[in-house]
Amino acid sequence: MFSILKSSLPAARMAPSLFSTLSAKAAYSTINKNTFHFKDLKTTKCTKPKQSIPKEKLVFGTSFSDHMLEIKWSESKGWETPNIVPFHNFDLHPAVPALHYASQCFEGSKAYRGNDGKVRVFRLDKNMERMNNSVIALGLPQFDIQEAVKCIEELVKVDKSAIPEGVGYSMYLRPAVIGTEPALGVRPSKEALLYVICSPCGPYFPTGFQAVRLYADTDHVRAWPGGSGASKLGSNYAGGMYPQKLAALKGYQQILWLFGENHQISEAGTMNAFIFWVNEQGVLELLTPELDGTILPGITRDSILSITRKWGEFQVTEGKITMDQVALASQEGRLREVFGAGTACVISPVKEIGFMGSDIHIPLDPNDPTAQSGPLAKRLYNDLMAIQYGDISHEWTTILE
Amino acid sequence: MFSILKSSLPAARMAPSLFSTLSAKAAYSTINKNTFHFKDLKTTKCTKPKQSIPKEKLVFGTSFSDHMLEIKWSESKGWETPNIVPFHNFDLHPAVPALHYASQCFEGSKAYRGNDGKVRVFRLDKNMERMNNSVIALGLPQFDIQEAVKCIEELVKVDKSAIPEGVGYSMYLRPAVIGTEPALGVRPSKEALLYVICSPCGPYFPTGFQAVRLYADTDHVRAWPGGSGASKLGSNYAGGMYPQKLAALKGYQQILWLFGENHQISEAGTMNAFIFWVNEQGVLELLTPELDGTILPGITRDSILSITRKWGEFQVTEGKITMDQVALASQEGRLREVFGAGTACVISPVKEIGFMGSDIHIPLDPNDPTAQSGPLAKRLYNDLMAIQYGDISHEWTTILE
Repeated sequence: MFSILKSSLPAARMAPSLFSTLSAKAAYSTINKNTFHFKDLKTTKCTKPKQSIPKEKLVFGTSFSDHMLEIKWSESKGWETPNIVPFHNFDLHPAVPALHYASQCFEGSKAYRGNDGKVRVFRLDKNMERMNNSVIALGLPQFDIQEAVKCIEELVKVDKSAIPEGVGYSMYLRPAVIGTEPALGVRPSKEALLYVICSPCGPYFPTGFQAVRLYADTDHVRAWPGGSGASKLGSNYAGGMYPQKLAALKGYQQILWLFGENHQISEAGTMNAFIFWVNEQGVLELLTPELDGTILPGITRDSILSITRKWGEFQVTEGKITMDQVALASQEGRLREVFGAGTACVISPVKEIGFMGSDIHIPLDPNDPTAQSGPLAKRLYNDLMAIQYGDISHEWTTILE
Repeated sequence: MFSILKSSLPAARMAPSLFSTLSAKAAYSTINKNTFHFKDLKTTKCTKPKQSIPKEKLVFGTSFSDHMLEIKWSESKGWETPNIVPFHNFDLHPAVPALHYASQCFEGSKAYRGNDGKVRVFRLDKNMERMNNSVIALGLPQFDIQEAVKCIEELVKVDKSAIPEGVGYSMYLRPAVIGTEPALGVRPSKEALLYVICSPCGPYFPTGFQAVRLYADTDHVRAWPGGSGASKLGSNYAGGMYPQKLAALKGYQQILWLFGENHQISEAGTMNAFIFWVNEQGVLELLTPELDGTILPGITRDSILSITRKWGEFQVTEGKITMDQVALASQEGRLREVFGAGTACVISPVKEIGFMGSDIHIPLDPNDPTAQSGPLAKRLYNDLMAIQYGDISHEWTTILE
């Protein structure tokens, strides 16, 4: 016997997103009993520090600091002690689920050397909170967020000499968790490694903003309700490689991901998307796609929402917007700015969106025809940089000295 | 200026699926110029062969043969020479895209020791054809399918002593391609490794079929139009770990993946799904979801379609079927069998499907209340085993001696 019940609502995967931490924690309630602890951290310094690359020659993600953080977990032993060790390659079994079933998640954060010479990290707790949700999707263990933050801060202190000086320079921090059980089988890995590597890097826009052209892709879809687009899993990025290659062949720098038959804006490449416009009700509004389970809850996104809401100068909305709305706003002169936001670039202004065979023109600065960003993008960039580099004292930054 | 054009059709990602090989090859037309060659294969035998595990104690995916195949690729050098080398761990940079952006795809095939003592592989060319499509999705290079097959066949020959004797026993072959560029950055990897490892394994059902209970998941979605569900990417498996864990807590062995508001059947766990029923038109029919871009083009799936079409005893359909249709067929006595099909299990009979809070009963054998499979599942299993173990000479098998 059976009966067919009506589904109550379109089902979105709730667990691995920031806004449902409680239910996730209830399901995996071992968090307090099973975490690593900062007090157990052991540091083994390298004997031969690398020769540092002149900061002008840094290429993002290609050079790394002298040390890394490693924390092992296994079903049998739980979390082991955290270790800061000399940077080294992994000795990895070729059957590990990290290499076959994308048992992997990551984060991106930065450490900054401020104009006062002090080293700061920016909202690292938010990164580790997000990672603590990502692991659930992989069936991997959670940990205590603050213990993780303290271990990473210690790594930054150990490698602080690798943080280049100067505004725009930073040390990119890459925490990751990978499944390391030496066996094939589609199931949650019984062994895992949380690790953090650090990559000194220069400004994303070395000569100032360079507005980009986005390709609004109607063929490929990044995330779906009931999928894992709201978690920072490696699996969310693999499918974008081919579409990105096609977009580049057409002369666009990034993809503007869309969703649904009405082409709602989803994300801009690996960034959250922001649209600054006068909406259909005539209200000046900054809009970013809402966290409906298909959108990554970006930390720069959250920071921009918080800053602009404090300003109180225009309406700030987490909602939905379609390409037709953007196109019409451009045509009617209601579109002010479009930009992407993420840790790597902070803000990335957009000057054109290719959609259905035509290019939609996006305004930059109405007072400066040569400008590569609009006034709002520039102001937000400057405000965020002022916080990150310590010109403004702010609760989002932690001084590590 | 811009104009809004109507999209011609719902856009499905065509490139990385078996049925659009031509367009994919047109886009990546370097295949003939850039492949590795079997004639260049070098074999380095291990000096200390592992002690083989008694075949009764084999656990799937946990022990491996003495050798592996490795073929490196880089943007600068192209494909290098294939090497069969002693099985070893990888020395892997912690920034490789295989560990961060799921730059990885894999295949699953088997080598069998037949009742005549001869070693056979089964449709390995189809696996390598599929892998040659998967790499496109990752922006990684293609290769010549036959050259790959010959290299893997040579690996099987080198390790043939590891193939256990007996029907149901085999050596599982795991080809994989991973992105190995030692740098962070969301873009196609500039370095890659194609490798193959071999894992001797016992029968999936050591004591005969064990029919499973599937949980028809209305909360999570495996694949979607415009995604990469038709390619065998690691990224298609990561998102299933958490739902699988939840289903197991509810007492179900596997998930029945659904798609759409009308709950179309998609896949059964990591297998293709088959429904044998009398359809609404009163026609006896074997139905499996059609390759619409969200379904993995399984090789066992293809083999079953081919075998049953040759029988000509009932209608064989690649189409769509919803849970409501299955439930109604069960209620009206029109449902004959449901089973999953894949390389690991060959055929996996289903006895119940949990859907919306109730269990739908799936018939097994009407003449045997203790049976763990229906007559069709059993017949197909026996037919496939007869081919794979060489009782029947067949074009799908290649003898390696």
